[in-house]
Amino acid sequence: MTRFYLFLLLLALCPMESAFSQDNEREDVEKVGDIFDFVLSQGSSYEWLRYLCKNVGHRIAGSPGGAAAVEYCKQMLDSIGCDKVWLQEVKVPYWRRGNVAECKIINSAVVGSTPLQVCALGFSAPTPSTGISAKVIEVNSISELEKMSDFKVKGKIVFLNKPMDPTKISTFSAYGEAGAMRTMGPNIAAKKGALGAIVRSLTLKADDVPHSGVTIFDSGNEIPAVGIGIQSANNLSEILAKDPNTKVFLQLDCKKYPDQITYNVIGEIKGSEFPNEIIAVGGHIDSWDLGEGAHDDGAGCVQSMEVLRTFKKMGYKPKRTIRCVLFANEENGLRGGTKYADEAKSKNEKHIAAIESDGGGHSPRGFSMDANTDILSNAYKKTQKYREILAPYGFYELVTGGSGADIGPLKSQNVVLYGYRPDSQRYFDYHHTVNDTFENVHKRELELGAAGISSLIYLIDKYGF
Amino acid sequence: MTRFYLFLLLLALCPMESAFSQDNEREDVEKVGDIFDFVLSQGSSYEWLRYLCKNVGHRIAGSPGGAAAVEYCKQMLDSIGCDKVWLQEVKVPYWRRGNVAECKIINSAVVGSTPLQVCALGFSAPTPSTGISAKVIEVNSISELEKMSDFKVKGKIVFLNKPMDPTKISTFSAYGEAGAMRTMGPNIAAKKGALGAIVRSLTLKADDVPHSGVTIFDSGNEIPAVGIGIQSANNLSEILAKDPNTKVFLQLDCKKYPDQITYNVIGEIKGSEFPNEIIAVGGHIDSWDLGEGAHDDGAGCVQSMEVLRTFKKMGYKPKRTIRCVLFANEENGLRGGTKYADEAKSKNEKHIAAIESDGGGHSPRGFSMDANTDILSNAYKKTQKYREILAPYGFYELVTGGSGADIGPLKSQNVVLYGYRPDSQRYFDYHHTVNDTFENVHKRELELGAAGISSLIYLIDKYGF
Repeated sequence: MTRFYLFLLLLALCPMESAFSQDNEREDVEKVGDIFDFVLSQGSSYEWLRYLCKNVGHRIAGSPGGAAAVEYCKQMLDSIGCDKVWLQEVKVPYWRRGNVAECKIINSAVVGSTPLQVCALGFSAPTPSTGISAKVIEVNSISELEKMSDFKVKGKIVFLNKPMDPTKISTFSAYGEAGAMRTMGPNIAAKKGALGAIVRSLTLKADDVPHSGVTIFDSGNEIPAVGIGIQSANNLSEILAKDPNTKVFLQLDCKKYPDQITYNVIGEIKGSEFPNEIIAVGGHIDSWDLGEGAHDDGAGCVQSMEVLRTFKKMGYKPKRTIRCVLFANEENGLRGGTKYADEAKSKNEKHIAAIESDGGGHSPRGFSMDANTDILSNAYKKTQKYREILAPYGFYELVTGGSGADIGPLKSQNVVLYGYRPDSQRYFDYHHTVNDTFENVHKRELELGAAGISSLIYLIDKYGF
Repeated sequence: MTRFYLFLLLLALCPMESAFSQDNEREDVEKVGDIFDFVLSQGSSYEWLRYLCKNVGHRIAGSPGGAAAVEYCKQMLDSIGCDKVWLQEVKVPYWRRGNVAECKIINSAVVGSTPLQVCALGFSAPTPSTGISAKVIEVNSISELEKMSDFKVKGKIVFLNKPMDPTKISTFSAYGEAGAMRTMGPNIAAKKGALGAIVRSLTLKADDVPHSGVTIFDSGNEIPAVGIGIQSANNLSEILAKDPNTKVFLQLDCKKYPDQITYNVIGEIKGSEFPNEIIAVGGHIDSWDLGEGAHDDGAGCVQSMEVLRTFKKMGYKPKRTIRCVLFANEENGLRGGTKYADEAKSKNEKHIAAIESDGGGHSPRGFSMDANTDILSNAYKKTQKYREILAPYGFYELVTGGSGADIGPLKSQNVVLYGYRPDSQRYFDYHHTVNDTFENVHKRELELGAAGISSLIYLIDKYGF
C-alpha cells in the first residue's frame, strides 16, 4: 500500500474534515512513513541492545552491572547529540543472589533424592549455610493459604502452585491473575510460621527454567523463597499427592545489603516552541540478575533512546521538549520512577505525556492509556486518530488501563500516560530467567516498536493536548 | 475482558440489530470463546507438529519423507474420528538435492580461496562432477539482467543480488517484490548463455544461512543455480567491486528424476444440514528438503487438522461439510492444488469457501480474502462482522488479495478463498532453510491461529454465503 493510498483511505473514512486538517493528515501519514523507513533501515536500537546485553549483562539496581548500564546509556545519549544529558541520583534497596540455590526432594516414599530447578526470589532470606529440610504443604491460591490454620503451615515449606491460565489471550492478564502467588504468598506463609516458600514460575512455557522476580516481605518477616520450574513444580505436586510426608531440602545464600546509590539516566531535546512542555519516554535500566535483561527491559531502554536519535538524524525539531528517561530500580522498589515524579513536582515541571515501553521487544499491537478522568476522554479521542495512522504498522489496539510502573507516579500530575503494548505470547517464556537474552529479541520487531513510539510522540508533539 | 462485556461492546457498535441477530451474536461470541479456550488448553496441533518435524522431517513431494508425512497425517485424521479420510493421487515432479553444494571464490586479486554459503535451488541442474569455474557478473534487478547483452553474460556465472526491502512492513510484500530474482532470474541468465546462477537469499535476517526455493526453467534450459547466504552475498559483491575478474568455483550434484506418485491427504466431517456444501481448510504437506518444514507448512497442516479435531471434541456438528485438505507439491509444482480443484469440478462438488494457512505459525494478524468480483463484496461484508468477533483474539486485519497458492485453482469455481495472515516479521528468517525447525514455532502462537481459523469456519458454516 502506498502512502498516498493510505492517505486517501483515511480521507474516505472522514470525508467531513476541513482542507486544513486534510493537509495535516497527509503530512502526518508521510512523516510517520518516513519515521518507519528510517528506523527499519538505519536504526541503532538493535546494536545498542546487543552491547547492553552482551557487554554490560544483567544489571540489578545498585550492582556493578547497574553502574555499567548507567555509564553506557549516558554515553549513547551523549552520542545522539541531545541538548542535555544528566543523571538523577536514586537510593535503592540492594539484594544479591549469591551462588547457591539448591532444592531437592528427600525422604519421599515415592522417589529418592530428586533435584528441583529453582532460583531465589528477590528479597528472599538465605537459609542457614547447611540448608533447611522440612515437609511441604501445597496451596493453589492465595485465599487457600490465607484460610489455612497456622498450625498446618508452621515449620513447613509452603509450595504455592497456581498455573497461569492458558485461555487468557493476553499473557499479561494471566500474569496479573497469578502474580500475587509470588509477590504476596511467601510473606503470608512466613506470618503463619512457614520455614520457606516455593513458588511455581509465572510462565506458560512447559520447560523447567525457574523464574525470579520480587517477593515482598514485611520487614523482619523474611524467609527463604524460590521460584521453581514448571516441570519441577508438576513433579513435586505429583509426589506430594502420593506421599504427603515428603520432605524438601533447600539451601540459599542470597542476602540483603545496605541501600546503594544509582541513577535515572536522562537525555532531552529541547522544544523549539514550548520548551516547558515535556513529553517523556522511557523504560527501566535495571534488570533481574539472571539472563541479560533483553526483553525486560533493555528493549524499552533502546527503543526510548531511538526516539531521540530518530528525531535528531531526521532533522526533526520538536515543538515540545522530548525527554528520554531510563528509570532505576523498577524490578525491586520503583525508586527511580518515584524519584523522577517527585523531582518533576518539586521543580514545577509540566509533563504533558509520558510513554513507557516495558512489555518486551516483540511485534507491536498498540498502546494503552491512563490519565486522571477529567483529561482521559479528550486525550483518548485525539490518540484514536493517531492510532488510525499507525494501524498499517501493526498498532491496532488503544485500550485504557495501567501504562507502566515507572511513569505511574506522574499520573497525579495530570500527565497522560501511555504504555507500549507488543504481542504478549512469548514474553513470559523469558521473563526474569536466564533466557532473557539478546538472541531472543528480533531486530525488526524491536524496531517496529521504536518507530511506533517515535511516531506517537511526533503526533503528540505536533498537536499537544 | 469477559465475553459478556465483549458482547455488550459489539451491541453498542451496532445498535440497530434485531433481537434475533443479537441472540445470534451473543451465541457467536460465546462459541468463539469456547473454541479458543479449548484449543489453548487442550489442542493437539503442537504435538502433531513435533512429530511431523522430528519423526518425519522434511518431505519434498515424492520423497520417502513425503510418503511418511502422508501416512502420518492420514493416521491422525483417522484418529480424530472424521466421517471419511482418503488419499487423492497426484503425480509430481521430483528433484533431489544430492550431497554436494560447494561454492568458493577463486582467482581473486583481493582474497584467496573463500568459501561461500550456498544451497541448490529447486530444479537446479547439477554441475559436471568436477564443478565449474567462471567469472561472475552481478546484477541487481531482473530488468538489468534482461537489458544486458548476451555477450556480457555468456560463459559467466550470473550473481542476482537484490536485497529485500526492510522498509516494507509486511515481509511478504518485500518477498513478493524480490522473489522474481530467484524464480525467473536463473532462466533468463541461462537463455543469455550463463553457465550458472547465484541468487541472494530472500530474507531480511543478516545471517549467512542460504535459502532454497523453486527456480523455474524452460525445459532443456536448466543451469546450476544456488541461493547464497546474505553475508556471503555481501562479501562476493564487495570483492567483485574491487576485482571484476574474480572467479567462482561451483559444484552441485542435485538431479531431476522421473515424476513420482504422492497424495493429497483429505479428511472430512459430513454436514448435518447441507452436506453438499463444502468448506475446505488446508495447508501443504510437502516442504523443502532443508530443515523440518515447521513454519512452511507443517504449521498450516496441523492447524487445519486441529479445526476438525476441535469440532469433534467439542461435540459441534457443522451444518456443512468441513474438509481438511493437505495439499501435495505446493513448493515445486502446485500439482496437488490443481488436482484437487480439477476433481472437485469433475465431480460437481460445491465448495462455498476454502481457507489456507501457509504464512507460518506466528501470532495472528487476520485474514485475506479473494473471490470472483460478483461474490466478493457480499462475502467481505459478512466476513467483516466475523472479524469483529475475532478482533479480541488478535485478528485485526481483513484485506483482499491472493489467499493461498493451493486453493487458488478453486477461485474459478465461485469459491470464497481465505488466507490466514500471521505476523510476518520472523517468517523469512526460517523460510526454505535448515532453520525451519520445530523449535522456532511457538505453541501458543500456533494455537491462536488454529483457534481463529476454526472460529472463522464455525461462523461461515453457521451463516453460509
